[in-house]
Amino acid sequence: MAGDTYGRLFTVTTFGESHGPAMGCVVDGCPPGLALQEGDIQRDLDRRRPGRSRFVTQRQEPDQVKILSGVFEGQTTGTAIGLLVENVDQRSGDYSKIKDSFRPGHADYTYQQKYGIRDYRGGGRASARETVMRVAAGAIARKYLALHLGVKIRGYLGEIGPFKLQALDLEHVDDNPFFCADPEKLPQLAMFMDELRAAGDSIGARINLIASGVPVGLGEPVFDKLEGEIAKGLMSINAVKGVEFGDGFECVRQRGSEHRDEMTPDGFKKNSSGGTLGGISSGQDILVSIALKPTSSIQVPGKTVDSQGRATEIVTTGRHDPCVGLRATPIAEAMLALTLMDHYLRHRAQNADVRSAVPVLGATHHP
Amino acid sequence: MAGDTYGRLFTVTTFGESHGPAMGCVVDGCPPGLALQEGDIQRDLDRRRPGRSRFVTQRQEPDQVKILSGVFEGQTTGTAIGLLVENVDQRSGDYSKIKDSFRPGHADYTYQQKYGIRDYRGGGRASARETVMRVAAGAIARKYLALHLGVKIRGYLGEIGPFKLQALDLEHVDDNPFFCADPEKLPQLAMFMDELRAAGDSIGARINLIASGVPVGLGEPVFDKLEGEIAKGLMSINAVKGVEFGDGFECVRQRGSEHRDEMTPDGFKKNSSGGTLGGISSGQDILVSIALKPTSSIQVPGKTVDSQGRATEIVTTGRHDPCVGLRATPIAEAMLALTLMDHYLRHRAQNADVRSAVPVLGATHHP
Amino acid sequence: MAGDTYGRLFTVTTFGESHGPAMGCVVDGCPPGLALQEGDIQRDLDRRRPGRSRFVTQRQEPDQVKILSGVFEGQTTGTAIGLLVENVDQRSGDYSKIKDSFRPGHADYTYQQKYGIRDYRGGGRASARETVMRVAAGAIARKYLALHLGVKIRGYLGEIGPFKLQALDLEHVDDNPFFCADPEKLPQLAMFMDELRAAGDSIGARINLIASGVPVGLGEPVFDKLEGEIAKGLMSINAVKGVEFGDGFECVRQRGSEHRDEMTPDGFKKNSSGGTLGGISSGQDILVSIALKPTSSIQVPGKTVDSQGRATEIVTTGRHDPCVGLRATPIAEAMLALTLMDHYLRHRAQNADVRSAVPVLGATHHP
Amino acid sequence: MAGDTYGRLFTVTTFGESHGPAMGCVVDGCPPGLALQEGDIQRDLDRRRPGRSRFVTQRQEPDQVKILSGVFEGQTTGTAIGLLVENVDQRSGDYSKIKDSFRPGHADYTYQQKYGIRDYRGGGRASARETVMRVAAGAIARKYLALHLGVKIRGYLGEIGPFKLQALDLEHVDDNPFFCADPEKLPQLAMFMDELRAAGDSIGARINLIASGVPVGLGEPVFDKLEGEIAKGLMSINAVKGVEFGDGFECVRQRGSEHRDEMTPDGFKKNSSGGTLGGISSGQDILVSIALKPTSSIQVPGKTVDSQGRATEIVTTGRHDPCVGLRATPIAEAMLALTLMDHYLRHRAQNADVRSAVPVLGATHHP
Repeated sequence: MAGDTYGRLFTVTTFGESHGPAMGCVVDGCPPGLALQEGDIQRDLDRRRPGRSRFVTQRQEPDQVKILSGVFEGQTTGTAIGLLVENVDQRSGDYSKIKDSFRPGHADYTYQQKYGIRDYRGGGRASARETVMRVAAGAIARKYLALHLGVKIRGYLGEIGPFKLQALDLEHVDDNPFFCADPEKLPQLAMFMDELRAAGDSIGARINLIASGVPVGLGEPVFDKLEGEIAKGLMSINAVKGVEFGDGFECVRQRGSEHRDEMTPDGFKKNSSGGTLGGISSGQDILVSIALKPTSSIQVPGKTVDSQGRATEIVTTGRHDPCVGLRATPIAEAMLALTLMDHYLRHRAQNADVRSAVPVLGATHHP
Repeated sequence: MAGDTYGRLFTVTTFGESHGPAMGCVVDGCPPGLALQEGDIQRDLDRRRPGRSRFVTQRQEPDQVKILSGVFEGQTTGTAIGLLVENVDQRSGDYSKIKDSFRPGHADYTYQQKYGIRDYRGGGRASARETVMRVAAGAIARKYLALHLGVKIRGYLGEIGPFKLQALDLEHVDDNPFFCADPEKLPQLAMFMDELRAAGDSIGARINLIASGVPVGLGEPVFDKLEGEIAKGLMSINAVKGVEFGDGFECVRQRGSEHRDEMTPDGFKKNSSGGTLGGISSGQDILVSIALKPTSSIQVPGKTVDSQGRATEIVTTGRHDPCVGLRATPIAEAMLALTLMDHYLRHRAQNADVRSAVPVLGATHHP
Repeated sequence: MAGDTYGRLFTVTTFGESHGPAMGCVVDGCPPGLALQEGDIQRDLDRRRPGRSRFVTQRQEPDQVKILSGVFEGQTTGTAIGLLVENVDQRSGDYSKIKDSFRPGHADYTYQQKYGIRDYRGGGRASARETVMRVAAGAIARKYLALHLGVKIRGYLGEIGPFKLQALDLEHVDDNPFFCADPEKLPQLAMFMDELRAAGDSIGARINLIASGVPVGLGEPVFDKLEGEIAKGLMSINAVKGVEFGDGFECVRQRGSEHRDEMTPDGFKKNSSGGTLGGISSGQDILVSIALKPTSSIQVPGKTVDSQGRATEIVTTGRHDPCVGLRATPIAEAMLALTLMDHYLRHRAQNADVRSAVPVLGATHHP
Repeated sequence: MAGDTYGRLFTVTTFGESHGPAMGCVVDGCPPGLALQEGDIQRDLDRRRPGRSRFVTQRQEPDQVKILSGVFEGQTTGTAIGLLVENVDQRSGDYSKIKDSFRPGHADYTYQQKYGIRDYRGGGRASARETVMRVAAGAIARKYLALHLGVKIRGYLGEIGPFKLQALDLEHVDDNPFFCADPEKLPQLAMFMDELRAAGDSIGARINLIASGVPVGLGEPVFDKLEGEIAKGLMSINAVKGVEFGDGFECVRQRGSEHRDEMTPDGFKKNSSGGTLGGISSGQDILVSIALKPTSSIQVPGKTVDSQGRATEIVTTGRHDPCVGLRATPIAEAMLALTLMDHYLRHRAQNADVRSAVPVLGATHHP
C-alpha cells in the first residue's frame, strides 16, 4: 500500500487533492449497529473548518460530508462506509511560479523527485486539506469509543511561540479560535497572531491530548506498542516534528525512583508514563503532545531552486494558515481516536475470552 | 497480527522470552544475492551484548547468532531468513515476589490484565532481551543499505541525566561503554554511573541518530510518512517516551522564516527538518532523537499492589541496566535501518520507472 | 480490515450498496506517469454494464465513472486515485417480503447473523453491483500491464449449462452478449437463455481466462503463490464456487510423466500447469477457469424461513441476471489484472536488482 | 511481505529449506490461556511424517517439534509462539545434475529467474518439506477451534488416478497410509501404488475436506470472502491446481432451482453451496476439495534445458513421494484450520457486540 490507508482492523483509506473536485474516504471495519448520521461527523468537521476566524486560512469550504454507504436506517451495517466532501473554493490561481520552483519547507521537491510528476496546485495531495477526511473518519471512531467504552478525547493548544498555555478550562476549548484552555491568555494570543500575519510570517505550536476512560489492555507487545502506533498516527499529520508521552523528553533527566508511577489500591499515584506500561494502556489517561513546525507558506521571500536546478527566490502568496497548529487540535484528536479504536478491535480479537482475576486499578485523571 | 512483525516488504517477525530457551526471528523480503554470513550480524549483536562493562546488566549472554535458512553459499536467496540466538544465562531465581505483585513502571500489571496470564520470569516477552532480534535483523538491512545505496547509520548518547553530550567524535562511539561521542565527558559519566549504581537508582537518556546517504523519495504521503514510520519503530523500543526530528520540539518556538530549510544549487542551507519534506526523505541526513525513561528495575523500594489488589512494597533485585539508554544505541540504529530498508523497497515497488528531470540536490551533512 | 481492500501494493478499496447513492473506490499504489483518462476505464465498465441485451438484468445504469483524484494533466501522479460511479436506477420497490425472510442461496441470512442488521434493498453490499468498482480499478491495472509489459488478458464463456464452448474466435468475444468465442453456438445459446428466462430459472457457467505476456517470476513462495492469490481474487467474485489452473481437476487422473511440461530451447512443450511452477509465473500463458453457480434470484418459489425462524416460501421478483456468468467475463479479467499488477510490484520491490544469467524460455501460447 | 506469513490476526510466519539445519515458524495472535504442549502439535506432525509406509518418501525425519516461546506453565500467554523442527536426514547427495539443469514441473526454473540464485538441494524452499510448519501451526488453531467452538476438521483421499473413493468410514482415515475412508478399496490402492513405483512414475489425487461446527458469520464481504480465503490457503500447498466448494464445477450445469439450498425451521435442506452464502459461513459444514497434480520428481527421463539454455534430459533420483496427495490430508486440514481460526478472530474483532434476534438454523452435516 502506498500509505493512504490507516489502521489494521478499523481502517480509513483516503483520497483527494487540495484543488481537485472532492475529498473522500472509505472507513472499513466499523462495528455494526452504531447509530450514525451526517451530523455526527459534521460536528467535528466544523471544528476543523477553514475560514472560521481571521487567524486561519480564508479559504471558504463548507466541508459538508455525505455518507454514501455503510449506513442503513440510521445505523452502521458493518460494511464499508464511503464518505465524500466536495471542494468548492479551490480558486484557480496562477501557479506558474510554484510549478517551476520548489517552495522551501514544502513537499514540492520531494514529490517531484519521488514521482517525476506532481500536482502543484495548492500542494496537491500534500496539502493539509487532506486532513478533512481524517477528521470525518475519526468522528466515527470517537462516537463508538464514547458510547461503548466511555472514552473521552480532548486536545488543546499547549504552547505557541513564546506562550506556554495551561489546561485550565478544557470544556471551553472550542469557544475560541485557538483551542486554548487558558482564557486569560486569549487577548495576548490574538495580538501575537495579528502581528505575525502582518509580518507575513508563521509560528510553531504544541498540541496536548488527553484520552480518558481508555480501558487497560490496548496495544501490543514488541512492535505495535500503543505509544508507537499513536506516534505514527500523529506524526503522519502535516507539520508534526515531535511526539512525546507523559513526561516525555523530561524523563531524560529523571531517576527511576522519580519517574515510575507507584500503584496503590486507590490507583496510580501519578502519571509520568502517560498512560501506558510496556506499550499497553494501563487504564490511566493517555497523555501525548505533538510539536508542529511553523507553516512553510509565508510572505517572507526565500531562496530555492527551480526545475532546472538554478537558484531563484520564492514568496508564497495565496491563502494560508499562519499557524498550522491552530487547526490541528481536531485533527490530532481524530488520529488518536482512530488509533485507539483500531487497537480496541485488535485487543478483543485476541483476548475476548480473557477474564483477569486481578482487580482493575482506578485511573489518575489529568489534568 | 499481534504486533510481533515489523515492516511491510522487508519484514521481521520475532519471538522469545527473557528466560525461555531461545530468541529468534524470521526476516522476509530480503533481496537475493546479498553476501551474508553470521559475522555480519554478530558484529552488531556484540555492540548490544550485556555484560560488556560494569555499567550495564551483568547477565552473561554470548548472543551467538545462527542463520537457519535463506542463505546459500554465502548469499541471500530471497527466501525467508531464520535466525536463532540461544539464551544461556537465564538464571532461575526466586520469582515469588514478582509473581504476586506488580513492579511499578513495568509491564507486569498491563500484561496481566490484557492476557489474564503472564510469564513473570525476567519480564517474559516484555523484557528488553527481545531487542536482540531487532539488532540481528537490522544488521541485514544495514548491510544492504550500505552496499547498495551508501547509507550510513550512526547513533550516540546525546544526553543522560544532567549531561548534554556533543557529537565530537562519531568514529569512536563504539570504543567506550556509553556510546558517547564526547570523549572528555567520559570520566564524569563513569563517576555518575557508579554513584547511581551505589544508590540503586537509574537514569534516563537521549539517543541521537543520523542516517546519511538516504536517497530522496523514501516515505509515503499521508499516513505512512517517513517520520511517522520511523517514530513507530523507535517508540516500539522498550522505555522510549519521545521522538523528535530535526529541530523537534524547538520548532514550537520558531518562525517559518527561521525553520524552513532554504535550497540553493549547492544543496539545502541547513537541516531543521531532519531530512524529510512532506513525509518523504529529501536526500539530507535523517536526524532523529529519542528519549528513554530511566529503568524501572531499581533497588529503591516502591509502593505497589499485589494480585488481590492489596497494598504492598517491592524492591527489584536481580541483574539490571541502571540506564537502558546505554545499550539502546545499536537497537535504535537497527530500527532505523529496518524502516529505511522497508521504505526503499516500497518506494521502488511503485516508482522503479520514474526518471525525474529535476537535478538532485546535495545533502547538508550533520553534524 | 473488513475485507473491502484488495492487494498489497497495488490496492483497491471499494464501497457502495446496490440501492445506495453511489459506488466508489480508492486505487492506491499506482505507478506515476501512466496516461489515464475516464475513457480508459469506461471501456471496461461498458463491457460489464447491465441492460445491454435481453439476456441480462434490465436495470439501466449508465455506469459513468468520475476520476476524483490521483490524475493530473492526464497522468497518474502516484497518489491515491478516487473513482465514483453514481447509481441512477435503484428503483425503490416493495421490500417487505425480503425484509422479513431470507432468500435461499443469497447472503440475506448470513449477513443478518453476522451483523445483526442488513440493508435488504437489492442485496445491499452483497449485490453483484459491487463488482462495478472491481472493473474500474482493474482497467487501470490492465492499462499499465499492457503498456509496460505487453500483458494481454482475455476471458470468454467456456461452458454454460449443457453447452461446452470453444475458444475459436477470441477477438470477437465482445461482439456478442455471451462473451462467447464459439460463434456457431450463438443461436443455440440465445434459444436456451430465452427458454430459461421463460421458466423463471437460472443457470451456471464456466469462464476461462488467458493472460499472455506475463513475465517469469511473479508470485511468492509458500503462502502467496501466484495461483493462490489469483484464486482468492476470482473466488471473491459473487457466485464463484471453483477455480482451476491449467489441466486443473483433470490432473487427479494424470501421471507425472503426462502432466509435467517438458522444456526445450524453443520453450515449454505444452502448458498443463497453467503458467506457473512452484507458485511463480513461468512466462507461459496463465490459464485459469472459474465455475459460477446459477443465480439464486429466480421466479421459482423456494422454501425458506422468516426472521422469527418460521417456515415460509419466497419468489424473487425484480430485475435479475438469469446467468451471472454472462456478465462475469470482464469482472474476472479485472481481478486477474489486479492480482498480476500487485505481484508485479511485489516482485520488483524485492528483485529489482536481479539479473539472471539463464536465458528466458519462450512461452507456449494458448489456445 | 515476501509471502512467508499467513493470516491477518492469527498469523504463521515460516522459514526453512529442505536441506537446511531446521524448519521453524512463529505463530502470532493466539489467544492466551489455551492449554498447549508439544504433544498437541506432535500428533498432527506424526500424521504428516515421511517414511511411515512404503508408499511415501523414505526420508527419515522424526519431526520432533520444540516450543521455544509463547507458552508458560502449559498455557499460551498471548505472545508469539516460536516452533522449531530440526532436519536430521538431509542426506548430502550429488546435486551436480539439478544444479545445472531445471527439472520439468519443478520450481527450479522459476526460482532461478526470479531470484538469480537458488538453493538447489532438494528443492530448497520450494520443497514440500516446508509444509511441516503449516501442520505444526495448524495444530494450535485446530485445538482452539475444537475446544472453544466445537469445530471438527477432517480430510480424506477422495480420488487418486482411476479410483473414486467414498467417505464411508471417516473415523479410521488415519489407520491406513492413504487417508482413505473407503476400506474396501485399500488392497487395490496398494497394488496400484506398487505398480506406479515400479514404473518410476507418479499420480495425481483429490483430497476432500469437511469442517463441521463452524459458526455462522465467518468470512468478510467483497474481497475476503471465506471461500476465497480458504482457496488461497489450500492453493498455496505445493502441487494444488484446483479448489472447489460444495457442488463446485458441477454447478456450471445446474439450474438455480436445483442448486440453491432451501431453508426450513429444521435447517438447510441440503448443502450444495459447501457451507457459505455471500462469502460468509452459514453454519453448515464447510465442504471443499482440492486437486493435486502428480509429483514432478519421477524416474521417467524428461526433456529440459540447462543453465545455458541448451537442451538436455533429466531423471530425478533420490527419495520422493509417488503421490503428493498421500501426505496432503493433514496439510490441507491445517490450512483450513488456520483460515477458520483467523476469520473467527477477525469476525469477533468487529462483531463481538452483535446479538442477532434471528434464530440460528441447524446445519446439515456431511456426509
